[in-house]
Amino acid sequence: MSTTEPLITTICAPATPHGVGALALIRMSGPQALEVAGRVFRSAACPDLTQSEGYRTYFGHVRDSSGELLDEVLLSVFRAPHSYTGEDSVEISCHGSLYIQDALLRTLVENGAVLAGPGEFSQRAFMNGKMDLAQAEAVADLIASENRTSHKLAMDQMRGVFSQELSALRSRLLELASLMELELDFSDENVEFADKKELRSLVESLLESIGKLCDSFSMGNAMKKGVPVAIAGLVNSGKSTLLNALLGEEKALVTPVAGTTRDTIEDVLVVDGIPFRFIDTAGLRHIGEVDEMSQEHIEKLGVKRSLETIRSAAVLMLVLDASRPETYTESLQSVASFNNEHILFIINKIDLVCNIDVILAGFMNTLCNTFVTSSKSNTSVLPVSAAKNIGIEDIKNTLVAKIRPDLDRNAIILTNLRHYQELRAAGEALQRVREGLDARLSTDLLTPDLRQALHHIGSITGEITPDDILGEIFGRFCIGK
Amino acid sequence: MSTTEPLITTICAPATPHGVGALALIRMSGPQALEVAGRVFRSAACPDLTQSEGYRTYFGHVRDSSGELLDEVLLSVFRAPHSYTGEDSVEISCHGSLYIQDALLRTLVENGAVLAGPGEFSQRAFMNGKMDLAQAEAVADLIASENRTSHKLAMDQMRGVFSQELSALRSRLLELASLMELELDFSDENVEFADKKELRSLVESLLESIGKLCDSFSMGNAMKKGVPVAIAGLVNSGKSTLLNALLGEEKALVTPVAGTTRDTIEDVLVVDGIPFRFIDTAGLRHIGEVDEMSQEHIEKLGVKRSLETIRSAAVLMLVLDASRPETYTESLQSVASFNNEHILFIINKIDLVCNIDVILAGFMNTLCNTFVTSSKSNTSVLPVSAAKNIGIEDIKNTLVAKIRPDLDRNAIILTNLRHYQELRAAGEALQRVREGLDARLSTDLLTPDLRQALHHIGSITGEITPDDILGEIFGRFCIGK
Repeated sequence: MSTTEPLITTICAPATPHGVGALALIRMSGPQALEVAGRVFRSAACPDLTQSEGYRTYFGHVRDSSGELLDEVLLSVFRAPHSYTGEDSVEISCHGSLYIQDALLRTLVENGAVLAGPGEFSQRAFMNGKMDLAQAEAVADLIASENRTSHKLAMDQMRGVFSQELSALRSRLLELASLMELELDFSDENVEFADKKELRSLVESLLESIGKLCDSFSMGNAMKKGVPVAIAGLVNSGKSTLLNALLGEEKALVTPVAGTTRDTIEDVLVVDGIPFRFIDTAGLRHIGEVDEMSQEHIEKLGVKRSLETIRSAAVLMLVLDASRPETYTESLQSVASFNNEHILFIINKIDLVCNIDVILAGFMNTLCNTFVTSSKSNTSVLPVSAAKNIGIEDIKNTLVAKIRPDLDRNAIILTNLRHYQELRAAGEALQRVREGLDARLSTDLLTPDLRQALHHIGSITGEITPDDILGEIFGRFCIGK
Repeated sequence: MSTTEPLITTICAPATPHGVGALALIRMSGPQALEVAGRVFRSAACPDLTQSEGYRTYFGHVRDSSGELLDEVLLSVFRAPHSYTGEDSVEISCHGSLYIQDALLRTLVENGAVLAGPGEFSQRAFMNGKMDLAQAEAVADLIASENRTSHKLAMDQMRGVFSQELSALRSRLLELASLMELELDFSDENVEFADKKELRSLVESLLESIGKLCDSFSMGNAMKKGVPVAIAGLVNSGKSTLLNALLGEEKALVTPVAGTTRDTIEDVLVVDGIPFRFIDTAGLRHIGEVDEMSQEHIEKLGVKRSLETIRSAAVLMLVLDASRPETYTESLQSVASFNNEHILFIINKIDLVCNIDVILAGFMNTLCNTFVTSSKSNTSVLPVSAAKNIGIEDIKNTLVAKIRPDLDRNAIILTNLRHYQELRAAGEALQRVREGLDARLSTDLLTPDLRQALHHIGSITGEITPDDILGEIFGRFCIGK
């Protein structure tokens, strides 16, 4: 045992999910990792772990502090800086018994390691310059990714695509700052170096870039939680049946009694790698009467919540009963005030009508008379029978066709709330710079705002980040990462 | 891709518990393991995996079949025969997202691997002579081990301690067989080579060895599931409170109403590495009246089950109310018919009495008058207050002191039901040999039984094991092992 306490601790933690499995991985990282491992691990293939090269794996025995054989394990050695954390590290693959995992961790601690806190391995990787903060945060997103799209967003971010964009943004901000400082230095001499017009167009283009990134956040959020699709419609139009058909299982309570669906029901369906979060809203029976009702009454009926859910959805799916054309107008009027980006009109129960073409023509006629043609919404009309499972695939394909371009349009999609907030703050500071330029303020009055914009951009990748913020970021990780 | 289908498949499976964690391990084994891995994994450190040495780890990228980057992973290479299975193998340590795990497995399958069945890796290790059947079975026990004792039993078995004992047993059986076959070969010449008395003493000593192993099974079972400790006592003697005090938490429903505990409640507590399974039995109110009651009535009261539970327990713990000496006789009589190996008399509620010594003397007096002194049981008397947490540690220490010698006495403890059954069958066959010897049957009439004994011993380590039995054994493993 060393006589002096090392400045940097050696941390250990299980890296695989808690539970019984064939194998479990225990990670250890820090200046003493090989020394601590050497005290508990014996392998004929490697008499002295501290002399081992990196990227070598050894079969051997682990004994607890009383000398009792704990397990036959595989131990892999990684040497600084060529490891995840940038420190000397080992990974021990032991049998997945909870008893063995606990005993092995206890033994490592008894021999000089300390238990790692959540995210401490990634925090060390950040501290040692193995990845920037945005990349480290992407590791947590990657682990949590549940579908192809959220996986790709996290992977791109982890690989530094987002960091490169920020770095470019930062360079342009620095260019702007240097132009302005240059002017400031020579301001006594009453010489204007920087062309104000050039400065303004630089600010303008920076604001546009930041605005685009901020705009992508709602899409990024949708990719993490599912693109919100609100299913609206009059009572008995078959919303719940449609939801079940889409999800392929019984989720909503389906009964022919009006108003059976009491509250919103959500479920996520991944189509072609894109997660859609379907939201069945409470029957819209009363929505037309909202203005006439007391606030209390509205809240009691949960209608207000339904209204908000529908308004914030990326897609509004209005379900109409094909067999009751007399309800078309009421149904369309109930959503006339919404202008979601995408609207799908689902003409449901087509199995109950004789001539679909006549029905569709009738609906289109009502639609033209009811909906304002200048609506910015991107609309589609789909004949469907949820009960007979007709047209369900068309709905899925239409949804993907509507959302896919939004995804492809943005090379970089913001998924992290902290990044969004920092970018927003940077944008606000830059807007103040723009206003100052427009008001012909002297340059020295503009630089503080510019510096603040730089600070916010820098704090995303961790170039400037206070310790307490770091603690908060890595505290959200799971143990062992 | 190879044009011929390989005779032995290459299997893959997740080896870590299902769930989201920092990392997950995916295993692949088989003649094509390196080729399949090489198709999906790229590493600057190793351009051609099939040329890699064993026990090397590489950092690199895994791409899915469409070329999309799936993850940054560590991949370890193991070359036949120096791997767990004895085949070429790889272990891929990827980020622990379920999406990544699923996509990675799908990609491996698309590139030539097949999903492994439960225990298939261990089955291959057995088939390739890396371990015998008893050792392979111990792997499953090791993974399931929850305390120091069950872990040690499984580890010993995996390390071959049990297999060596069986091998010695088998050698002695073979010696016996050869002696008898020798006689058989020359029986026409009417020469008796083998001394019948020597044969008999060989059989006798073999039967003793087998008997000892069989006897250890109940201990082995207890070590896996917990040593059964039945808590008995009259109503309101404080059994549930005692159980809570032992377990250190609220488990049983404690109320002062007589007969509140309706059925047996079990809980395991590990003391000094030994698991004890405490069983709170239904109030023994009616046990004294069993003989007078109808069978139906007994079953209805759950008393019959309580009786069986108490009879089969390794330890009987009778709880008495120190404050009501008048109940001692009734209480002792209620368990007078039991002869468990260990009996603990818990004189509870000592916080309610003035003079503990007087109480204890009174109890000992009643005990001598009630209990038959020739009882084989090993008894102890402990003054306790479950409510005030007095004497609880004494109970734990006493339990360990009673059970530890049983553990230490047996170098090898049988834990597997299949092994127990095979040993029992071997023992029965040998008993028939002994009877035959005693009845002076000719040797050729004894050899079939002897061969059967050999067969049963051999099937434990897998020297003789039909395929369907193998399937059943490995089917109990978890996937990935």
